[in-house]
Amino acid sequence: MAREIERKFLVAGDGWRLGARGVSYRQGYLSAGEGASCTVRARVAGEHAWLTIKGPAAGGARDEYEYPIPVADAVEMLERLCAGGQIEKLRHRVPFAGRIWEVDEFSGENAPLIVAEVELESIAAEVSLPPWVGPEVTDDPRYTNAALARQPYSRWDRR
Amino acid sequence: MAREIERKFLVAGDGWRLGARGVSYRQGYLSAGEGASCTVRARVAGEHAWLTIKGPAAGGARDEYEYPIPVADAVEMLERLCAGGQIEKLRHRVPFAGRIWEVDEFSGENAPLIVAEVELESIAAEVSLPPWVGPEVTDDPRYTNAALARQPYSRWDRR
Repeated sequence: MAREIERKFLVAGDGWRLGARGVSYRQGYLSAGEGASCTVRARVAGEHAWLTIKGPAAGGARDEYEYPIPVADAVEMLERLCAGGQIEKLRHRVPFAGRIWEVDEFSGENAPLIVAEVELESIAAEVSLPPWVGPEVTDDPRYTNAALARQPYSRWDRR
Repeated sequence: MAREIERKFLVAGDGWRLGARGVSYRQGYLSAGEGASCTVRARVAGEHAWLTIKGPAAGGARDEYEYPIPVADAVEMLERLCAGGQIEKLRHRVPFAGRIWEVDEFSGENAPLIVAEVELESIAAEVSLPPWVGPEVTDDPRYTNAALARQPYSRWDRR
């Protein structure tokens, strides 16, 4: 098991785009109900695919298990088993101040959402924020990809 | 993807025991809610472990994807993520009339249940039934292992 520790921010500008090249991600959830103790994700990223299991999130950290699987299996799972909706996004890897930020530019029903994540060795680790990040949403469950698959950004109630 | 096609029977006698040697299975479900479109199973069998995804069952057949994973990962998943209960059983492989029958002898809260399964090339395939099998339960959802993890045999209402 790995331990995933990350902070997540909304993106407030275009400063990250210079030189960024996105990889196409398509993913869905085999298990991600409201009451589920964990999520099971099938992801196709470029020419590769993974099955990823994540435990419950607590304070920005969660257990994570990830296994490579055949792309054909992942595509079938997305089409046949991921009833709760799919996520499509471009993931850009953007270096800033010694860390790699992952900037996810969502398409489809989650456009025009853009979110930036940085993986940390501990939740208290010091991290320099790039000028193009906005409010932190680490603890906002609406911004998990599993939640965005169920309830896409374009359908949020903003009244 | 593989396609799992099998028939399942209760076991009515001890005729299968002669020469049978069981392998200890321990398994749990990361996803197996009532409304889930699929189940995700972590299984430790002897010295090996697997992660298995099965689609919805229909007429004895279901989609199945199976990947070997480290035993340590599977044990952690069983302990940390399989909220819905676990299955423990001895699985015996019993040859009969040219086919291998898997006889599952449940322990813990599912004792004294014993179930025999035979995998088929099609649901209509001809199969000779051993003298020690009883009623067929292929289409009874209570006997799926995912259901037995949630609602163990010893707690069934038999009034």
